[in-house]
Amino acid sequence: GHVLADTHRMIRQGFPEAVYAEGKTPAQTFDALSALVAAHGCALATRVRPEMAASLQQRFPTGVYDGGSRLYRVGKMSSSFPSASVAVVCAGTSDLPVAEEASQTLEFAGVPVKRITDVGVAGLHRLLSRLEELRAASIVIAVAGMEGALPSVLGGLVAAPVIAVPTSVGYGANLHGLSALLGMLNSCASGLAVVNIDNGFGAALAALRMLNMQPKA
Amino acid sequence: GHVLADTHRMIRQGFPEAVYAEGKTPAQTFDALSALVAAHGCALATRVRPEMAASLQQRFPTGVYDGGSRLYRVGKMSSSFPSASVAVVCAGTSDLPVAEEASQTLEFAGVPVKRITDVGVAGLHRLLSRLEELRAASIVIAVAGMEGALPSVLGGLVAAPVIAVPTSVGYGANLHGLSALLGMLNSCASGLAVVNIDNGFGAALAALRMLNMQPKA
Amino acid sequence: GHVLADTHRMIRQGFPEAVYAEGKTPAQTFDALSALVAAHGCALATRVRPEMAASLQQRFPTGVYDGGSRLYRVGKMSSSFPSASVAVVCAGTSDLPVAEEASQTLEFAGVPVKRITDVGVAGLHRLLSRLEELRAASIVIAVAGMEGALPSVLGGLVAAPVIAVPTSVGYGANLHGLSALLGMLNSCASGLAVVNIDNGFGAALAALRMLNMQPKA
Amino acid sequence: GHVLADTHRMIRQGFPEAVYAEGKTPAQTFDALSALVAAHGCALATRVRPEMAASLQQRFPTGVYDGGSRLYRVGKMSSSFPSASVAVVCAGTSDLPVAEEASQTLEFAGVPVKRITDVGVAGLHRLLSRLEELRAASIVIAVAGMEGALPSVLGGLVAAPVIAVPTSVGYGANLHGLSALLGMLNSCASGLAVVNIDNGFGAALAALRMLNMQPKA
Amino acid sequence: GHVLADTHRMIRQGFPEAVYAEGKTPAQTFDALSALVAAHGCALATRVRPEMAASLQQRFPTGVYDGGSRLYRVGKMSSSFPSASVAVVCAGTSDLPVAEEASQTLEFAGVPVKRITDVGVAGLHRLLSRLEELRAASIVIAVAGMEGALPSVLGGLVAAPVIAVPTSVGYGANLHGLSALLGMLNSCASGLAVVNIDNGFGAALAALRMLNMQPKA
Amino acid sequence: GHVLADTHRMIRQGFPEAVYAEGKTPAQTFDALSALVAAHGCALATRVRPEMAASLQQRFPTGVYDGGSRLYRVGKMSSSFPSASVAVVCAGTSDLPVAEEASQTLEFAGVPVKRITDVGVAGLHRLLSRLEELRAASIVIAVAGMEGALPSVLGGLVAAPVIAVPTSVGYGANLHGLSALLGMLNSCASGLAVVNIDNGFGAALAALRMLNMQPKA
Amino acid sequence: GHVLADTHRMIRQGFPEAVYAEGKTPAQTFDALSALVAAHGCALATRVRPEMAASLQQRFPTGVYDGGSRLYRVGKMSSSFPSASVAVVCAGTSDLPVAEEASQTLEFAGVPVKRITDVGVAGLHRLLSRLEELRAASIVIAVAGMEGALPSVLGGLVAAPVIAVPTSVGYGANLHGLSALLGMLNSCASGLAVVNIDNGFGAALAALRMLNMQPKA
Amino acid sequence: GHVLADTHRMIRQGFPEAVYAEGKTPAQTFDALSALVAAHGCALATRVRPEMAASLQQRFPTGVYDGGSRLYRVGKMSSSFPSASVAVVCAGTSDLPVAEEASQTLEFAGVPVKRITDVGVAGLHRLLSRLEELRAASIVIAVAGMEGALPSVLGGLVAAPVIAVPTSVGYGANLHGLSALLGMLNSCASGLAVVNIDNGFGAALAALRMLNMQPKA
Ligand SMILES: Nc1ncnc2c1ncn2[C@@H]1O[C@H](COP(=O)(O)O)[C@@H](O)[C@H]1O
Ligand SMILES: Nc1ncnc2c1ncn2[C@@H]1O[C@H](COP(=O)(O)O)[C@@H](O)[C@H]1O
Ligand SMILES: Nc1ncnc2c1ncn2[C@@H]1O[C@H](COP(=O)(O)O)[C@@H](O)[C@H]1O
Ligand SMILES: Nc1ncnc2c1ncn2[C@@H]1O[C@H](COP(=O)(O)O)[C@@H](O)[C@H]1O
Ligand SMILES: [Mg+2]
Ligand SMILES: [Mg+2]
Ligand SMILES: [Mg+2]
Ligand SMILES: [Mg+2]
Ligand SMILES: [Mg+2]
Ligand SMILES: [Mg+2]
Ligand SMILES: [Mg+2]
Ligand SMILES: [Mg+2]
Repeated sequence: GHVLADTHRMIRQGFPEAVYAEGKTPAQTFDALSALVAAHGCALATRVRPEMAASLQQRFPTGVYDGGSRLYRVGKMSSSFPSASVAVVCAGTSDLPVAEEASQTLEFAGVPVKRITDVGVAGLHRLLSRLEELRAASIVIAVAGMEGALPSVLGGLVAAPVIAVPTSVGYGANLHGLSALLGMLNSCASGLAVVNIDNGFGAALAALRMLNMQPKA
Repeated sequence: GHVLADTHRMIRQGFPEAVYAEGKTPAQTFDALSALVAAHGCALATRVRPEMAASLQQRFPTGVYDGGSRLYRVGKMSSSFPSASVAVVCAGTSDLPVAEEASQTLEFAGVPVKRITDVGVAGLHRLLSRLEELRAASIVIAVAGMEGALPSVLGGLVAAPVIAVPTSVGYGANLHGLSALLGMLNSCASGLAVVNIDNGFGAALAALRMLNMQPKA
Repeated sequence: GHVLADTHRMIRQGFPEAVYAEGKTPAQTFDALSALVAAHGCALATRVRPEMAASLQQRFPTGVYDGGSRLYRVGKMSSSFPSASVAVVCAGTSDLPVAEEASQTLEFAGVPVKRITDVGVAGLHRLLSRLEELRAASIVIAVAGMEGALPSVLGGLVAAPVIAVPTSVGYGANLHGLSALLGMLNSCASGLAVVNIDNGFGAALAALRMLNMQPKA
Repeated sequence: GHVLADTHRMIRQGFPEAVYAEGKTPAQTFDALSALVAAHGCALATRVRPEMAASLQQRFPTGVYDGGSRLYRVGKMSSSFPSASVAVVCAGTSDLPVAEEASQTLEFAGVPVKRITDVGVAGLHRLLSRLEELRAASIVIAVAGMEGALPSVLGGLVAAPVIAVPTSVGYGANLHGLSALLGMLNSCASGLAVVNIDNGFGAALAALRMLNMQPKA
Repeated sequence: GHVLADTHRMIRQGFPEAVYAEGKTPAQTFDALSALVAAHGCALATRVRPEMAASLQQRFPTGVYDGGSRLYRVGKMSSSFPSASVAVVCAGTSDLPVAEEASQTLEFAGVPVKRITDVGVAGLHRLLSRLEELRAASIVIAVAGMEGALPSVLGGLVAAPVIAVPTSVGYGANLHGLSALLGMLNSCASGLAVVNIDNGFGAALAALRMLNMQPKA
Repeated sequence: GHVLADTHRMIRQGFPEAVYAEGKTPAQTFDALSALVAAHGCALATRVRPEMAASLQQRFPTGVYDGGSRLYRVGKMSSSFPSASVAVVCAGTSDLPVAEEASQTLEFAGVPVKRITDVGVAGLHRLLSRLEELRAASIVIAVAGMEGALPSVLGGLVAAPVIAVPTSVGYGANLHGLSALLGMLNSCASGLAVVNIDNGFGAALAALRMLNMQPKA
Repeated sequence: GHVLADTHRMIRQGFPEAVYAEGKTPAQTFDALSALVAAHGCALATRVRPEMAASLQQRFPTGVYDGGSRLYRVGKMSSSFPSASVAVVCAGTSDLPVAEEASQTLEFAGVPVKRITDVGVAGLHRLLSRLEELRAASIVIAVAGMEGALPSVLGGLVAAPVIAVPTSVGYGANLHGLSALLGMLNSCASGLAVVNIDNGFGAALAALRMLNMQPKA
Repeated sequence: GHVLADTHRMIRQGFPEAVYAEGKTPAQTFDALSALVAAHGCALATRVRPEMAASLQQRFPTGVYDGGSRLYRVGKMSSSFPSASVAVVCAGTSDLPVAEEASQTLEFAGVPVKRITDVGVAGLHRLLSRLEELRAASIVIAVAGMEGALPSVLGGLVAAPVIAVPTSVGYGANLHGLSALLGMLNSCASGLAVVNIDNGFGAALAALRMLNMQPKA
């Protein structure tokens, strides 16, 4: 077929290629998932619409679909990170689908996740009351739409890596998420790592790269 | 000459027209200031470069120039607001010129100003330690560049009107201040009043409109 | 659940958190409204689609939905502002949904509203014939799409605070409301307070902050 | 040389090609002007910097340079429009260079010009007091920066053609004149004719096309 | 009701206010049309969708709807321009709806229209073979999408006023018509008059302003 | 040093790496040129400012600098294309620096160039009178600023490959060349090959790739 | 009817006009195709939706529709290029529709196509393992969305002309394909020829112009 | 004075506040550096122009200025990371100033740096020949302008965290670095961490956050 799954990726990067289902036919997504399951025993597809999920489900009896994050997964990786923990923090309830894409991708890879929800900076006490949990995390993934100020405030409160995920939540001058993205790129909190708008998946993989990191010779 | 000062503005709006000096010749600026001084006994010019200030100074012996804010003023308005106070808060030292444009325009109009400087959200303790002063203000003007998150946080901490002033401080994806502007327009703190990038003058006039506000029949 | 309503906000800011329904499930919206009604005896949701309103109505028998502004409200705040009046002015009939979002949010908070409709600047006599009413208002909220010139003209006619609300009404080079937004930010009428495109709710809250304003020590 | 003047243009369009001096060497500008003077007895160059003007002046003893509009002209066209009159209206003093580019291009072509200066919409009485003169004009050219609202208001007051010229006057969110341009393109006053930012020359030529217009068979 | 038709506009500008139906309810559109028919005996609505047209038709038995241009008109103006003619030229077949909006608005006002279709500059012979008709027109309206080069070429071929109408026809980097709009604003053919993207109506009204133009004292 | 010239490029692509001098110190540019001359016997640097050229000249006695195109070259390639010819066509005199960057890069590679200057589409007869020469060319490089319509017209007149080079010539809504770039990308003349704004060098290399092209097994 | 097919184009450019079906009615598309079939014996329409294809099929019994690329073709050109070969390379499976638009347009014109799929740069070994095939091609068409890096890498690996086709595949900051387009225009691999976003058809025609190219006198 | 250094930051984040010198007076920069040296025994300022550096040098005899990166540092942190190594890779020589800002910030913090220069993807062999060194690094910082493809390719070759730094190197459609920024945000290599354009400092701090990371309870 037309699909050539990058099955070397697991070796090179410790995570199998994920299938980006947007713009693929169900048949193409199925082919890619099959090749990956054959190679690795598990596979993940992102941005899967409900109709496609239904059609995949007939082919992968053990597949699991989550309608919020639109993730479809078959099996689970064998890796585990027992002593690590990633805090996935989101500013508003509307940011949950993106936050869940990050959380569930991490869980697929064996990483324990701490979810902290609805702690946007307009009601600062909500965030400050979770400070202990935040400081206990190895890595913080901060998900926010609108002006995207959450990672700026978090970046000043914790020493851990902060991965900033802008979302498209908002309207008008938020320009489909650009306002949050620009805010995060220009943060006066130094050392934020930014990913694309709504890219919870990418944030999870950035975190995995860090957790796999080892001092070298 | 070619300059027609809007001398009615004082009556209609309680503040004389200010001269926008950018793009004017020194002669045009002088003509406009003269007409305003003749009508009101005082006048203000914004965005005056040092060379122009020097040339104006020869014509208005009592004029005062501030190189940071680039304001040139002759005299002072007779109005006063003894029981009011406006807090002009800025995120970083680089935002000071814009903050001073706001502060000194207010002082020209007889409004007491409380300056709170260098309290950006990446070091939240700096802001929280000033909370009492902030809550004592009638109005808060919040000046910030880069991601412009300061007004969002302030908007959640005080009940007073918050006037948000984005600055062009930053580089790259700050797009000459657009990132801060967009952040403020999309704030999840409700009811922020936003003005143009670097428009400290406009923020001061918005505050004046509020201080002059009276319950009507 | 995943929703953490900011019930302190009423104390900090004199207005309860409002629920932004866009991007929320009906269940999430219901949870947030319930928490707020429990805490304050009233609650407001914005950007509620008809289907969601129908589902909410089954849970809140006294809830009221307005299809134009897409506001859903349960009860009403106990505050009142008998001597104040806010003029909500709009340029064209197509701007009405946004103007109503502002007007009805204000009425929910006990503020008397004067509606002035269809007075765009291309037919100036319509606006000038309402000048007396406009000058009687404590605050003017000016709602306009396309080139958004209405607040500029109003800003020159009244001394009161002018809150400018750009709408997305128009097509082509209006860029979904950016032309009106940019026009308002660059107004030569000084001291306009601008909010996000289509943000009638934010305009109402900016007005409330002003009406709650008190001279401080 | 490398310059090929379009000397047919006078015949096809009733106006000789004008030389756009920006990005040309003085020698190229001189060559182009010479060819045009040879063909038509007169010529016009736009956007000429003072240094280039000085060097041209040595070659064309009868040439005239205007530092405000940056126009350089040799001679004058023989056409005349005695019964017509174009009103060139500008919003602020800072818009004068662009307005003068329009006015002097028209005068070069023999068209009588009525200048109306500093009548921006933030002080509406200034504009309304000139209504009679405005209604007497065959064509109105309206020049404005910042939010560019002047043509919208004018378009509603006169029946004549209105040519709208945005200028780059302003800062921040004016985006070098885009705010004024977008405002004019989206005007709710119908039938405005818009030209490029700072393009006083183009406005004059649009007016000339109209004045040369004749009912045809 | 909420609709305030600007019935003075006919007197001030020689054309009645037209109803912009986008974003209006059928009832609002009906109210506005009724007020205008009552005042002028005729009325025009633009951007009317088929469903709304069907509902209007039940109220105005003599109304006429054109599905291509989305114009709905009741009656016709009494003006006539027997010795004038406007050429409405379009680059591709896909630009026809916008071209028809211009043509039929002109015909509603009694202006004779010459339609010249599918003469884009990529096949120049098509345009050149119509040169005689083009040169016979009092005014040329040039409608084009994609790169919008047609008015540039036409502007160099005729001396008449050229009104350039960019359309949103195209995809990708045409940015919903911005490429054509920018092309027309930057044309090296001098004196083009540009209107908003897809604004055939505005082009017709610009032409009408020109045809109504009279030399004044 | 820090410069690693890609000396394999000649073998892989038939053209040596050229040095992009913008943002390099004279020492870095010298190092890169030296390495390339050592490997190939010739070298080319683009975007060289006069001061840098002067300093290079002291090191390469046989180097040649052209101030218009800002090209600095040492020697010449040994390749030759006797039966080919590339027409480098430009719309206005101000586009010459970019056109010369293309022409002289081609000549450095041994390709005969036909220059056709100042034939913009606003004076179509100038272009049509050169049609024979244009049709005789193997490849046409069309250089234009402002609305960039020249390649669209050329693309419809010749069957040869047309390489479209937008320039930054213009002002206001030309957005530093974006208007020309967008025009060329959206051309209704099919099969144009577009390069970056002001990238005469890239156009020459695209042409070289075509001239080196050979039917393969 | 309103459709004027450019039937000369075959003579001028060696390829018949193709019908751009987006924004056309089925009747208009049918008329255009009929005129072209009558003149050339074959015809191609692009961007045909399934419903329109079904309606066309009833009129052209021998027509062929491909749902992926949305091409509708009647017959086939008589030209052939036996010794040439174009490699159509795409980065991801989601880019296939655009790649197929290029491939099938070329096959309609008699050009042999080599398809190389799913070789994006994030898994470089996939691309490097196809190097021999890539170097055997006369021309390479490189189709990629997201960051669009494939043509940059290819441009450094082959000496043949590289036609870069950005696609709109991606989300968020890909801005509907602008990220890929900008990446290709700014490639440090010199001499890439870029076409519009999703314009597989244009890429095929650029390739055809090259294959038809002949050394001239 | 007006400067309030955030001296807590060292404790909260393991790195002292750095002074952003752009937009500060020399006196303000000196004050901030002094406060930081007093608190921590060392300090760093970024974006220091040569004149300011000269003036600082008179106050800090042991200060060191690097003209390429524009870093000014006094002393050095006491931390050390002997078993870690960060590879700072850049695509072209012109990207060196940004790469050096990252490298020297890391060295200031005691992190060993491996510099790999001039390995852009247009000459892939240069990058592939350094693969061993790249795979030996704990973290890779990839600096690139123009299309910014380097991090995409690197992201596919190494499993370590990749911090992508776009630079403003390029011209025209690179939009001052936006093309590289967008490319990196949309990379098909998953898990890249992106920082602002030209923000070498931010990349170094993101790396430090990772190196300081510890598995938590
Ligand atoms: N810094 C400033 N920002 C925005 N508007 C200003 C500023 N300074 C003065 N203005 C206003 O801008 C307008 C300038 O008009 P003019 O001086 O005629 O060009 C007046 O209405 C002033 O009140
Ligand atoms: N997919 C396409 N992308 C770009 N141009 C196209 C496409 N399909 C056809 N065209 C060209 O677009 C023009 C369409 O003009 P028209 O069909 O008259 O609107 C013709 O010159 C076609 O050759
Ligand atoms: N949601 C996502 N966002 C960004 N990249 C993704 C996403 N899902 C998968 N990918 C990556 O995108 C690439 C898709 O390539 P393809 O599936 O061949 O079109 C693969 O490298 C995936 O690892
Ligand atoms: N004017 C130019 N425009 C675009 N690319 C260029 C230009 N001059 C040189 N180049 C290419 O840009 C790259 C410069 O890389 P570097 O010199 O290492 O920064 C090389 O691949 C050159 O071939
Ligand atoms: Mg919430
Ligand atoms: Mg500070
Ligand atoms: Mg109306
Ligand atoms: Mg003025
Ligand atoms: Mg056609
Ligand atoms: Mg010329
Ligand atoms: Mg793939
Ligand atoms: Mg290099």
